[in-house]
Amino acid sequence: MITRAIVLFAHGARDPRWAEPFKRLQYRVQSRDPAIRVALGFLELMSPRLPELVDDLVPQGISHISIVPVFLGQGGHVMRDLPEIIEVLRQKYPDVEFRIATAVGEDESVLDAMADYCLRAAG
Amino acid sequence: MITRAIVLFAHGARDPRWAEPFKRLQYRVQSRDPAIRVALGFLELMSPRLPELVDDLVPQGISHISIVPVFLGQGGHVMRDLPEIIEVLRQKYPDVEFRIATAVGEDESVLDAMADYCLRAAG
Repeated sequence: MITRAIVLFAHGARDPRWAEPFKRLQYRVQSRDPAIRVALGFLELMSPRLPELVDDLVPQGISHISIVPVFLGQGGHVMRDLPEIIEVLRQKYPDVEFRIATAVGEDESVLDAMADYCLRAAG
Repeated sequence: MITRAIVLFAHGARDPRWAEPFKRLQYRVQSRDPAIRVALGFLELMSPRLPELVDDLVPQGISHISIVPVFLGQGGHVMRDLPEIIEVLRQKYPDVEFRIATAVGEDESVLDAMADYCLRAAG
């Protein structure tokens, strides 16, 4: 039984195409580790919102949830909105462990890959 | 004389901390290739906006500008707003070559680095 989940937390947008790279990231992470459930939850404008997603995961036996903000910067959504959402979820699910990672765009190797891409794109 | 520029195009936000990872990316790209000018221009809420930035670069002798959208997805800002801004700039500066790259989040190696980070973050 799978008890751990990685939740990719993204902003959401009106245009459904906006979610495509996040879904590709989800599949890519999932394919690397089938022993952990990888899901995608949104702040707004798209479904599922993060709380709905957690409401879906917990009854399936997920007890450890690592939330990874798929944001380039640690702005207000990551620094303020996300902790508020998680605080409510912690009170609702006291037996579930929630961890919040730093935003992907803050990671050194992600920044390196982006820098390489910028130089390649400039040709 | 430096004639080529990479312009990192980002959304902008009210919180000045939001720009930090973009500035780190700018410095990282710049440090890898001193022969190309690397600048950061915003869609809204932060300075310089992309048109102001181009108005500043062109008189300095920059004649080739590669715009790299530092966005995770190809949403409306990248698909609609950016081409409109560039069209106006092309008319204003007919002798300058403008190229628009695909958003960083669409690049395979960036997605790979993000996937690695997600798994590391989940410990």
